[in-house]
Amino acid sequence: MALDAADLGPATSLTCRECGESYELGPRYACEQCFGPLEIAYDFTGVTRASIEAGPRNIWRYRGLLPVPSNVQDTPNTEPGFTRLVRADHLAESLGMQRLWVKDDSGNPTHSFKDRVVAVALAAARELGFKVLACPSTGNLANAVAAAAARAGIRSAVFVPADLEQQKIITTAVYGGTFVTVRGNYDDVNRLASEIAGEQEDWAFVNVNVRPYYAEGSKTLGYEIAEQLGWRLPDQIVVPVASGSQLTKIDKAFQELIRLGLVEDRPYKVFGAQATGCSPVAAAFKNGHDVVRPVKPDTIAKSLAIGNPADGPYVLDVVRRTGGAVEDVTDAEVVEGIRLLAGTEGIFAETAGGVTVGCLRKLVASGALDPEAETVIINSGDGLKTLDAVAPVARPSAEIAPTLEDFRASGLA
Amino acid sequence: MALDAADLGPATSLTCRECGESYELGPRYACEQCFGPLEIAYDFTGVTRASIEAGPRNIWRYRGLLPVPSNVQDTPNTEPGFTRLVRADHLAESLGMQRLWVKDDSGNPTHSFKDRVVAVALAAARELGFKVLACPSTGNLANAVAAAAARAGIRSAVFVPADLEQQKIITTAVYGGTFVTVRGNYDDVNRLASEIAGEQEDWAFVNVNVRPYYAEGSKTLGYEIAEQLGWRLPDQIVVPVASGSQLTKIDKAFQELIRLGLVEDRPYKVFGAQATGCSPVAAAFKNGHDVVRPVKPDTIAKSLAIGNPADGPYVLDVVRRTGGAVEDVTDAEVVEGIRLLAGTEGIFAETAGGVTVGCLRKLVASGALDPEAETVIINSGDGLKTLDAVAPVARPSAEIAPTLEDFRASGLA
Repeated sequence: MALDAADLGPATSLTCRECGESYELGPRYACEQCFGPLEIAYDFTGVTRASIEAGPRNIWRYRGLLPVPSNVQDTPNTEPGFTRLVRADHLAESLGMQRLWVKDDSGNPTHSFKDRVVAVALAAARELGFKVLACPSTGNLANAVAAAAARAGIRSAVFVPADLEQQKIITTAVYGGTFVTVRGNYDDVNRLASEIAGEQEDWAFVNVNVRPYYAEGSKTLGYEIAEQLGWRLPDQIVVPVASGSQLTKIDKAFQELIRLGLVEDRPYKVFGAQATGCSPVAAAFKNGHDVVRPVKPDTIAKSLAIGNPADGPYVLDVVRRTGGAVEDVTDAEVVEGIRLLAGTEGIFAETAGGVTVGCLRKLVASGALDPEAETVIINSGDGLKTLDAVAPVARPSAEIAPTLEDFRASGLA
Repeated sequence: MALDAADLGPATSLTCRECGESYELGPRYACEQCFGPLEIAYDFTGVTRASIEAGPRNIWRYRGLLPVPSNVQDTPNTEPGFTRLVRADHLAESLGMQRLWVKDDSGNPTHSFKDRVVAVALAAARELGFKVLACPSTGNLANAVAAAAARAGIRSAVFVPADLEQQKIITTAVYGGTFVTVRGNYDDVNRLASEIAGEQEDWAFVNVNVRPYYAEGSKTLGYEIAEQLGWRLPDQIVVPVASGSQLTKIDKAFQELIRLGLVEDRPYKVFGAQATGCSPVAAAFKNGHDVVRPVKPDTIAKSLAIGNPADGPYVLDVVRRTGGAVEDVTDAEVVEGIRLLAGTEGIFAETAGGVTVGCLRKLVASGALDPEAETVIINSGDGLKTLDAVAPVARPSAEIAPTLEDFRASGLA
């Protein structure tokens, strides 16, 4: 591919997160020296609050901070982002907290934060000469890739396990790209995707061969929170942990904003949230380990069910550096978390949101999180996608005949 | 209820749409003289582009044009609105059109335009002294009422037919209000709701006894479209028709903006879209009738399945006055419409959106709609809520074993 003319905005190179080796921008994702993950390095110039505020009402307002072309907003993409930051006084009250916000990413085009990372991956992939947007997935990512490619007018190729729920098949297939079910589990699908990426040189698997670009999309959550708070960082933030990338990138965003002088440099604490049935990072945190020991996931929070999280060690770094913690909650607490958020704020979260609310509650109860300090939690997806999780408990109050007598007798008047 | 102190912003009175009789603001909805529907009358003062643009990024930026308290944004509500207006070049291209936009209301908090009308109903109902937010519903409205009441910290009471799909039960019950299933069809539920409204004087049934306020919420779709186009009206707009209220209120919004000098006074055409299986307004339009003859609905577009649409005659007035038309499409065309929008723009609409896209296509083909003129279509809800409609056709491209050989053999490389 001809990269000489590539415009990736402020991105200047790829550097190895482990050994620091530097590489030219391109479709690389692992260090040739040590196999460590590659990260985007930048040279930010001319980014001010005013320049951001003059931008579109989506993630492209932060294009000066992302590895995307400077005219990125002129090309169709799903234009995610700038989702609501909701003041959650009733939830706060129920937890004995003072000042709580929910960053509600269910408002994105396909109703999860994956639209952010996919949009950045798509923009970078086009610039790097890729022709097909692809991924292995079991849910939200499949929706986001198929939708973004459709909107961009390019081909998508999504690979999922053949036993995926019918519902998730429909919500991806409707966008009309190439959609392959694979007889195997997610690990099999993932391995096959890597093999195909090695053969099909113009296929960008967003979470494989263009992962360094893709992952940067999560920074926009951090930028938006700061801007929506009036260019200010919260005291505490609680972030769900799957691969761990979202948490580390929000921290990266906060650090960049401080360095650029866009927000005041003040301490903040980052907390991670996992489901107990897939809590390798929480376990490492609690045991004081630096290494994250892989687990076999067994939880209803399937969008967080990554047993061997690539960014787990970096999550531990961030959490320990900022004075946060990593907590985990049982599946029953996940369901309670979903109901609590819905019942207090009218926000119906997918299981990942239930994990985050459940962990918030536990962190307040244990004293790890300060109930007086301003706190933001991330709702990364939509309850409409995980109805099965709450089906057993989300039941009607009563069934009656269509008469006033029966209504009166129900005791509900 | 003590209405003397009620602050309903610019609203001044209720007037009968049929006979013009005027009433004080209050919890009325039908004319005592002729039983005609009541509409809000206003005295707008001090509303400018600048005053609107300085407001919050939700429908409350238009509070100066709505029957809500002037400090409405200080009280928790679901804060819907300011959803995306998406430039749809690929859809336009596939239909041979020049300049097409999709107003995508699936981005609202519970993913349908009902959040708008419920938010206004809630704000007015609180001000009028009601204590419970209620509705009869079969879907989107139930979600919106339960969510808004939860967020506002007041009680909800939602009534649905007992044979409603399990999925719709869950998405309402999760918010935790009073939720009653009624052994009967929707007509039975609706009748029961009116009876209860007559007995429970502090229950606001949003679509019954506070309907005049509720219906005004749809005006915000019109305001937003004009503002998002840069304070300009489109040449043509295609709106789905259930009760017909959304279409007439968008027209009302456009007329208000013209009268206030916020947009240029230029002609626009309003088109209505129905499913053939419930197309009483389209039938009346095509037959040149002024009266809408009720039908028994039989269509997959259940959110539009109102056989006796209250605002049907007013839809005919608007469409004829502006030079538009009312079209209808079969259920197969509805599904095609959903797939076309998803495949060209990455927007997964519920069946109502499929109706709108299908009618757009038919209107262009027939020449009733000018493909060269700037056109806006409304997507009023989310495909995640009507998965069954597309399940038979949204299928994978292929199923393979997890090997490169099988992938190559699939012919998908």
